Amino acid sequence: MRGASAICRLSKLRPHLHPFKPQLATSSPIFSSYYVLPLSATSSLSDVSSKKMLNLKVSVIGSGNWGSAIAKIVAENAAENRDMFETDVRMWVFEELVAGQKLTEIINTQHENVKYLPGIKLPSNVVAVPDLLDAVKDANLLVFNVPHQFLPRICSQLKGKVPSTVRAVSCIKGVEVSGDGITIIADYISQELGIYCGALSGANLAPEVAQEKFSETTVAYKVPDPSDSIDARVVRTLFHRPYFHVHVVDDVAGVSLCGALKNIVALASGFVDGMAWGDNAKAAIIRRGLLEMTKFGREFFPECNASTFTEESCGVADVITSCSGGRNNKLGAAMMKTRRPIFELEEELLKGQKAQGVTTAQEVHEFLERRGKLEDFPLFTAVHDIIFNGLDSYALPQILEDVEQKY
Amino acid sequence: MRGASAICRLSKLRPHLHPFKPQLATSSPIFSSYYVLPLSATSSLSDVSSKKMLNLKVSVIGSGNWGSAIAKIVAENAAENRDMFETDVRMWVFEELVAGQKLTEIINTQHENVKYLPGIKLPSNVVAVPDLLDAVKDANLLVFNVPHQFLPRICSQLKGKVPSTVRAVSCIKGVEVSGDGITIIADYISQELGIYCGALSGANLAPEVAQEKFSETTVAYKVPDPSDSIDARVVRTLFHRPYFHVHVVDDVAGVSLCGALKNIVALASGFVDGMAWGDNAKAAIIRRGLLEMTKFGREFFPECNASTFTEESCGVADVITSCSGGRNNKLGAAMMKTRRPIFELEEELLKGQKAQGVTTAQEVHEFLERRGKLEDFPLFTAVHDIIFNGLDSYALPQILEDVEQKY
Repeated sequence: MRGASAICRLSKLRPHLHPFKPQLATSSPIFSSYYVLPLSATSSLSDVSSKKMLNLKVSVIGSGNWGSAIAKIVAENAAENRDMFETDVRMWVFEELVAGQKLTEIINTQHENVKYLPGIKLPSNVVAVPDLLDAVKDANLLVFNVPHQFLPRICSQLKGKVPSTVRAVSCIKGVEVSGDGITIIADYISQELGIYCGALSGANLAPEVAQEKFSETTVAYKVPDPSDSIDARVVRTLFHRPYFHVHVVDDVAGVSLCGALKNIVALASGFVDGMAWGDNAKAAIIRRGLLEMTKFGREFFPECNASTFTEESCGVADVITSCSGGRNNKLGAAMMKTRRPIFELEEELLKGQKAQGVTTAQEVHEFLERRGKLEDFPLFTAVHDIIFNGLDSYALPQILEDVEQKY
Repeated sequence: MRGASAICRLSKLRPHLHPFKPQLATSSPIFSSYYVLPLSATSSLSDVSSKKMLNLKVSVIGSGNWGSAIAKIVAENAAENRDMFETDVRMWVFEELVAGQKLTEIINTQHENVKYLPGIKLPSNVVAVPDLLDAVKDANLLVFNVPHQFLPRICSQLKGKVPSTVRAVSCIKGVEVSGDGITIIADYISQELGIYCGALSGANLAPEVAQEKFSETTVAYKVPDPSDSIDARVVRTLFHRPYFHVHVVDDVAGVSLCGALKNIVALASGFVDGMAWGDNAKAAIIRRGLLEMTKFGREFFPECNASTFTEESCGVADVITSCSGGRNNKLGAAMMKTRRPIFELEEELLKGQKAQGVTTAQEVHEFLERRGKLEDFPLFTAVHDIIFNGLDSYALPQILEDVEQKY
């Protein structure tokens, strides 16, 4: 990250201190005045040639709004770090026609995903590829970023076609919970393709990231083989931008669990919003939710770090964002305001899309029930029972009180 | 807490599970259907007589909105726990005339603090006392809840008049930071009066607590003498209500620091709101603020627990509430929207009141500067520099990046 280091050195001089000047707030882009350093100012050919050239080929699998936003970031970094990455970044696009023209052709000529991320210019080194196997051919690093439900088909197409030395990072949030166990998406990819896979998750509303509004994320990546050229430094360099700060940890399970369990907490915070209980109650529910998330991780994945939940962007920060007005929070609030069944509201509000929290609440409940652990997770259990068993939401404080400190 | 235990036993039967019934959301009171158990149902004279009677006399010093809300809670608990507490709870009231009548007389006859907590009925066992020494006479437990700036005068009046066996809890948030050191309010009370003092702090907007909307708090209390009859159980019983959940910890410094430092974070989150950076950025700033708060505690009060900051109501939850629209958050937002000096805005928006965060940011900055530790607290430092030195707020992400994980 020579670019970043150069910025660091500059900032030691604190160039932003200036007499107070009236200035109107603007929304975006917010980095133009600080980050547009010409490449020549931060690197030169001799810098590059003195380093080992890695020439890593990166492919992004997926091109929804989050897939396209991540492809934009990865391509920006590939262009700026030629010692590490090949400049072109392939993005697999499920081909479709938009106003009679192929979406891949639109992306490759207009440099905009007009269907899923309209209004955002993509770097010209994002190369849209309609064929999945073409998109991943000779790639060293795969970034998975497709809707959850498409993953099995994609993995079955890739099975046996990807060398075991390839490395992957999954930006697909969540886990698969069944009565019998919990499968982390990254592990599913690992198992299906026989390659190592890490995970990226954080307080990352895709449109804000695409607009280069300041965000942070957590990448879980534990180098599987000490001889790998893809290490934590490479992974951070691939994703870190001045507007998208990356913290690398090695806790793949913790990062993945956060992305799934926070949706249950967001439903609960939506209940509080819908019942107009106020800011104290909302903060209390978020806090208790975060504690149950941490407990769940530590109980069923003892290798998890509590700090992943309480300190990282994928944990505390993503919970806060999800409880501020995400899909699950809105659905929970609507359920309390209207006192109608959640599935009717989901249909109406999300127009056929699913709020992940409802499924997760159900799957986690089934899992905890089989393990005989429902009582240890009173908030998760209450969310399930409010949705599925007609539990009165006004009982929430008492239910939480039952498991509190007693003397 | 016999009452609570009885409720626990009841709730094991999960009486709230019932077929889904349409029901309109109402805002408050939210506990009527669960908590109105007649006293006779949960205790009897023989219960009481079989226990050691403590007969603790409790006085609340202060009667603003937070003081009155706490007096209400304490009086409710004193009435329900006659084995521990004398029923009457004295509340010291700074005497003033309201429509020609003495405020203490109004409180003692109408059972309402019409001036500072209008619309909320106080229990009839809250006894307003205009004379400070009368209010604390023979008290075993003092609950301090006055505005910060009145404390020195109150302590000077009480000095030498309070036996060393008396115990206290301070609900006054914050710390006194000077260039030379940091004094925790609870320690100040201890030193001035020669008595042990704990601290109560949490995500507690006073009007919501007074309306019995669900809230949580943290009480820091470390029994100073093993022979004390006032222990953590007594302290929890004094403050815990079905609508106001108490977690007792022994980290007085951590709880007190949270209450002060969160105001700096709330200013920063206000900046983000004012610049319309979005939910990702706001969550990022809250997360980074929480980490700096924790680091500050661990660095300068090594006896602090990190978990006080990241897991307790006084930490993560209070930060979330304060960043949702508290006074400091609003002021920070106004500063960014108008690009006017904060002191002008403080005057206009708060009508002469002070936003604690501005003073705390200044005092903490001075303290860190003398210790040579400014660079370890980039967010705190940036908040100070944005307010006082014309630092451009758009530099925030880059400033935070400078201290991040590098490879």
